[in-house]
This record gives sequence, structure tokens and C-alpha cells, in this order.
Amino acid sequence: MGIPLDISSGPEDPQIHAGVAVIGGGVVGHGIAWEAQRSGRSVVLVDDAPGSGASWAAAGMLAPVSELHYQEEDLLELMLESSSLWPGFAAGVAAATGSDSGYLTTPTLAVGADAADRAALMDLRRVQQANGLEVEPLTVREARRREPLLSPGIACALDTPADHQVDPRRLVGAIRLALAGAAAWTPELAVEGAADGFAVQDRAAGLLWDGGKVAGVRLAGGGTIHATETVVANGLQAPGLGGLPDGLRLPLRPVHGDILRLAVPQHLRPLVTSTVRGLVHGLPVYIVPRQDGTVVIGATQREDALPDAVSAGGVYQLLRDAQALVPAVAELELLECTARARPATPDNAPLLGRVPLPAGSGAHIPGLIIATGFFRHGVLLTPAAAAICRDLLDGTADPRWSPFSPDRFSRPLAATGTHIKETA
Amino acid sequence: MGIPLDISSGPEDPQIHAGVAVIGGGVVGHGIAWEAQRSGRSVVLVDDAPGSGASWAAAGMLAPVSELHYQEEDLLELMLESSSLWPGFAAGVAAATGSDSGYLTTPTLAVGADAADRAALMDLRRVQQANGLEVEPLTVREARRREPLLSPGIACALDTPADHQVDPRRLVGAIRLALAGAAAWTPELAVEGAADGFAVQDRAAGLLWDGGKVAGVRLAGGGTIHATETVVANGLQAPGLGGLPDGLRLPLRPVHGDILRLAVPQHLRPLVTSTVRGLVHGLPVYIVPRQDGTVVIGATQREDALPDAVSAGGVYQLLRDAQALVPAVAELELLECTARARPATPDNAPLLGRVPLPAGSGAHIPGLIIATGFFRHGVLLTPAAAAICRDLLDGTADPRWSPFSPDRFSRPLAATGTHIKETA
Repeated sequence: MGIPLDISSGPEDPQIHAGVAVIGGGVVGHGIAWEAQRSGRSVVLVDDAPGSGASWAAAGMLAPVSELHYQEEDLLELMLESSSLWPGFAAGVAAATGSDSGYLTTPTLAVGADAADRAALMDLRRVQQANGLEVEPLTVREARRREPLLSPGIACALDTPADHQVDPRRLVGAIRLALAGAAAWTPELAVEGAADGFAVQDRAAGLLWDGGKVAGVRLAGGGTIHATETVVANGLQAPGLGGLPDGLRLPLRPVHGDILRLAVPQHLRPLVTSTVRGLVHGLPVYIVPRQDGTVVIGATQREDALPDAVSAGGVYQLLRDAQALVPAVAELELLECTARARPATPDNAPLLGRVPLPAGSGAHIPGLIIATGFFRHGVLLTPAAAAICRDLLDGTADPRWSPFSPDRFSRPLAATGTHIKETA
Repeated sequence: MGIPLDISSGPEDPQIHAGVAVIGGGVVGHGIAWEAQRSGRSVVLVDDAPGSGASWAAAGMLAPVSELHYQEEDLLELMLESSSLWPGFAAGVAAATGSDSGYLTTPTLAVGADAADRAALMDLRRVQQANGLEVEPLTVREARRREPLLSPGIACALDTPADHQVDPRRLVGAIRLALAGAAAWTPELAVEGAADGFAVQDRAAGLLWDGGKVAGVRLAGGGTIHATETVVANGLQAPGLGGLPDGLRLPLRPVHGDILRLAVPQHLRPLVTSTVRGLVHGLPVYIVPRQDGTVVIGATQREDALPDAVSAGGVYQLLRDAQALVPAVAELELLECTARARPATPDNAPLLGRVPLPAGSGAHIPGLIIATGFFRHGVLLTPAAAAICRDLLDGTADPRWSPFSPDRFSRPLAATGTHIKETA
């Protein structure tokens, strides 16, 4: 591995050579690119609007415990693995850049608004406990001693100390710095960074094939990235990529979320010291405190929306339910309403790994890794996705992650030698 | 009158000569400047951020009937006068520019959500009728035939056909064009326009005095505008102006309002064809339909806010109450949340007119007109304020408007020859 970067940039058709090309500059793509780079590979990250997709809206909760859903134990294992990797990952980013990634071990308080919400949270606690997770009920009085601005009308509170947070916008910025060295991003330059890591501000048009293997990326702007390995990490845009293997079905659907950012006036700081994850008459809402005196309130899940359109009903619901838990939310300054779509899969788990050749052969399409479909868990799963991809680049695959094989929703891939689906 | 414009623009201290200097580029200042210009005077408008204050947030309801409050009959007369001037004013702007000012004779529907709201609206109707205003109750069925998306749960609806609307952002832009001729605004140039009307992008530091009369404006940037007449129309900033007459008290306080702009999806257009002004459990809310498929929802009134800070509680209240009247508001796309402060006075009426010299003399401070404190009514009152100022420039004063004299909250002005308060 470790092909040195080589840019022969003719005006018409720049040719870039790298060890690894990562398509998609969200938090997952950044994490994979950086992990590949620090494992000794030269890396190119391709995105025409890095960090502006689902990562831009994400609240950054690192919440394997709270995010446990019934019958998603495989996903739980991956989430716990990634959670355990987070401290080292964040420290690595900080050490590489001198820049804080916004990682905080803020504890989480799960709060139910009414008796039905309490029952739902207590039912979930049984599953959480069966999986060895720590979730401890507090009395309302105890919860309000810890968070005095919680409404006295809440029905229950459960301490969930293992669920933490990171600021995804700071994180992407910090990884970007780590990836590109100290080179600052300038929009005039299509390429930033130098030496062994940089980013191309362009859209990937499709995969470049060389015989039966993927050999890089064709750029929409006309250039080509020649790479030993290519990672498809561009979220909802992955299925639209040209040259995907014939028969590979990436069944992603957009699940929109509205998220609010608010400033806490000085006299109300801190509004909360824990992340408050509420269930309010059956609807989830969370309040994530940041160190800069702001809070993030999210997040709706809508499947019938215009791209990036903020829903008036969604904003209303978030403000209503957040006030039900913390009435002083009414006193905050509303700084920003943002909506983005997250890439969801039929089983809520990512499409992560190499693409197997026809069943039984045991081999994979060389040069290609898929890493998309992270849905609500992209930020939490970034260190695990990065580590899993690094292992795949090294030629090893942990069987624990085989349930996330990207071909699990595909008909058996064609047995012929041609794997190229020309859709671009 | 009609001193020709003369700019001697040395690099250090530009000297501008004009017939009329208008301090403040909100909708009122623009209206006064344009009226002065089309009455044959050369005009300079001074504002470092024209159109960005309260005018930027205003919904533009022209609603003398709905805005009637108990014991504000003097203000009602001014509002009705201005309302009658609106069609000609809008036509004049359109004729001068070929540009639409966004004036529409959209009717208004006053809607009450519950029995108490109905009682309040019916009580108000008695006062409206006593003042000769047309407000006709509709059955809920009739109201919903006219506006099918109104909630069936409303308690009452009253047709208020005389209350119309204008788009304040378009209006300011159109008057700006009218004032400056066809000259486009360029931020690099501090001065736009030519001939007999233009704008200076600077802040007014204070009034320029020449003996006992006001002779123009000192600019914060160092220049001077020499003017025969100076109009103080800079809203909440008026009391901070240097060189105001000694003893003149302009008791303005900021009343903040949150306002929302939303896009109506195609399948819900038109959301409403009337402006819907609701009273929902005692709180006012309105929904103003624009021709471009958007609606404006406002407006809260808050007196304890940070400048331009959008209140989370305010946005929540607006969305809640608007949905109570028109449930489909939940389906809209939230485009913008804006907050601005309006300049309110103790009696909710403007400070409008010349400043009398000590009681009994019958004379006024020469060269000075005050036009501020328009509170919720700046857009509606713009044509009247413009006409009244034009009359004052012509040397006539209609006694009907003497209740709005700008010195009505001041102790008797000093009897000495010095009227200058140096606060700048």
C-alpha cells in the first residue's frame, strides 16, 4: 500500500493517483479517509460540498444505550464497539491537529413525560439491562437536583452515563485539518492538502473499472482519480453513482430530520448539564448542551419531505416537546433551523464492507469498499467504520461485522465476468 | 425649495447640499424622501443599513380596522387617512419605477379560536361599528367556504374587507428605485442615485445647527449634509441622535416581534386567500398570504429581548396558534425566522411633526421635522407620514394631526435661544 500521491493536472483532465479514494465528505467519509491516511496510505477525499449533508445537521449524540431498538442486537454490538473507540479516535484527531473535535463525556438523562412514556422507557431498560447496559432510574427529585430546570411534571428519569456526545461540525473541520495538514481550505483551489492526504472539491460521477476490479473514481468535472482502493461513503448519493457492480442493490431511502440550534441566555446557563433524551407522549426529542452556551434540539423523522426543507410542523413539535421537559426552552434564542436527510436502510443498519463475488466463491470485487446507510448513527459509528475499513484495506475482515455486508439486500450478483452497471 | 444637489466630495469630509435630508431608511423614511422628491425637492436619505430594521420584519398589513384599539380614536383617524392614500401611493411608486410595490387589496378575515376570543372580537366590533367601520360576522360554514383550510373548530369569523396588505421588502426596494432613478445600488459606492434624489450609506451622528435652526446632518463617517429641512425618521435610533433640541424627549421603547416566512407546497396552494387575523386563547396571530406562494406568520410582542434575537417561545407560540386556525400550517416549509424591534411610544401613536418653540410662541424650530415612533403601524402610516411631511415642507400643518406632536411627552422646551442638546 502507500502509493504516493501524484497529480498530473492538465487543464482538461487532471489525473490523480492515490492509495485510497474516498467518495463522500460527510463525517463517515472523513473518518475513513483519516484512518486510512494514518495507517500509512495516501488518500484523496472527493466531495463537492464536504460536511454539508446529514453531518451538518447531526446533533452528535454518541448513544449506543439510548439508541438501542428491539431486535437490533447486531447493530448494538457495532455501536458499542464504536463507542469504545471514540475516546482514542477523538484523542487522535486532537493530537494530529491541536484542534478540539468537540468530544465530551456529557452523560445522558432519559426522561419520560407521562405514564405511557415511563412504561416505554422501563420496558426498553429491561432489554438494555439484558444486554449488559447501565441504565439507572432516578426519582424525579434526584433528576431535578441534577438538572434543576427539568419540569417537575416529568414522569420518570433514567441515568444513562455511557452515552456521550461530539460536535459533528467541529469534528469534520478537525478531521479535515488532520487530513490536509495545516493547509487551509480555499474555495478557489479544487485540491487542498499535500503529501499524503487531501480533498478534491468535485462530485464523483462513477467508479473507474480496470477489468474486474475497481481502479478509482471518475469525477464529474472531468478528472480521474486512480486508486488501489475506493470507498463509497457518499450517503444517499451512493445508489446514483455510475459503475456500481451489476446487481448490487443499495436500498437507501431519505429520512428527513429537523434540528434546531439555540443560544442559552447567560442567566439560564447551563440550561442542562446532561444530554436530555425525552419521550413526550410517544415522540422522541433531545436537548444536547454544547460547551459554547448553545443547545441542539432534535430530531424529527420524516419520510415525505423536500430535500433540506425545514418543516413548520417539525419545528413546532420539537419546541413543544422540549418545553414539556425543560420549560425554560421558551426563553432561548432560536439561532438556526436546519433539515437534512439521513440515508436509511430497511434494517436501520449500515451497508458496510466489501462486495462479495457470486455466492460460494468467497472472493470479493477487488478495490471496492461500501460504507453508507448509517442513518441515525453516522457520527457514533465513524470510528468503527474507519477501523473496519482500515482492516479491510489491510486484508482482514472481522466476522462480527458480516451482518452488515453491503450485498445483503441484493439478488445474487451476476456470475459473469462483468460487474459493471453503467448508470452514470 | 428645491436646492439642487451638490456633492463636493473631498476624501476626508464630503459636503453634500440638498433641499431635504431624511435620517433613517426604513419604510417611513423612504416614503417621506420619495414624497419630498416628487414634490420637487432634492433629497438625501441617510442610513448605513437601509431597510434592515423593523421594516425588514414587517408583515405589511394595512389594517386600520383590525388594528383599532380602545381609546385610540385619534390614531384611527390617521390610519384611515393613510389607508385611503395607499392605492395612489402604490400606483405612484409603480408608475415611477415600473416595479410592483407588492400592494394588494387582499381582504382580511378576523377569526376567534374560542368563546372568549369570539366575545373579544364581537366587543371590538361594536367599537369598530361605532366608528363607521365595516366588520361583518360570517358563520363558520361561510368562512370555510371562502377559506377551506380554516379549522372547523374556530369559534367565529368576521369579514373585514377594508384591511389590505403590501410587501414591505418589495416596497422599500421599489421606493429606493424611485428615489435613485434607475441607478442600481452597489455596496462599494457610498452614494447612489443622481439628479434630485439619492442615498448615503452612512449613519447620522447628529443634527447640524446654524444658529437657532437645524441646517442638516453630521455623518458618522465624517461628511456633512447641508439641508434646508431635516427629517428624523430613524426609528428607535432617534433618541440617540446628537444635537436634538434641548428638552425634547422622544420616549421610544423597543417592542420586539418574531415573524416567520413559510413556503406553501403546491398541493396546498392557496393556503388562504384572505389575510387571517386570529385571536387564539387571547393571543393575536396572523397569516398573510403573498402572491409568490409564501405566507408570513406573525407577530409576537416582547419587551425584554436581545436585539434581533428570535425567541424560541415566540416561534412556538406563532406556530401553535397559526395551526389552531389553519391546521395545514404544519405542512409548510419554514423558510425564515426573523425578529426586529419596533419603536413604541407611551400612547402607541407616532411622534410626527415639527418641534414647537416654547409654549405660546406658536413658532417651531426651523428646519426640523420628527417622524418616528410608528410602532406596529409604520407600513400602514407611510403614505400619511409622507403627505404630512410634504405639507410641513410646504409650510402648512393640518390641525387633525396635532395630537401627534413630537413634543407631547417633553417638559416645556427651554425658553432660551439654545435648543441644542449635545449627546453625540
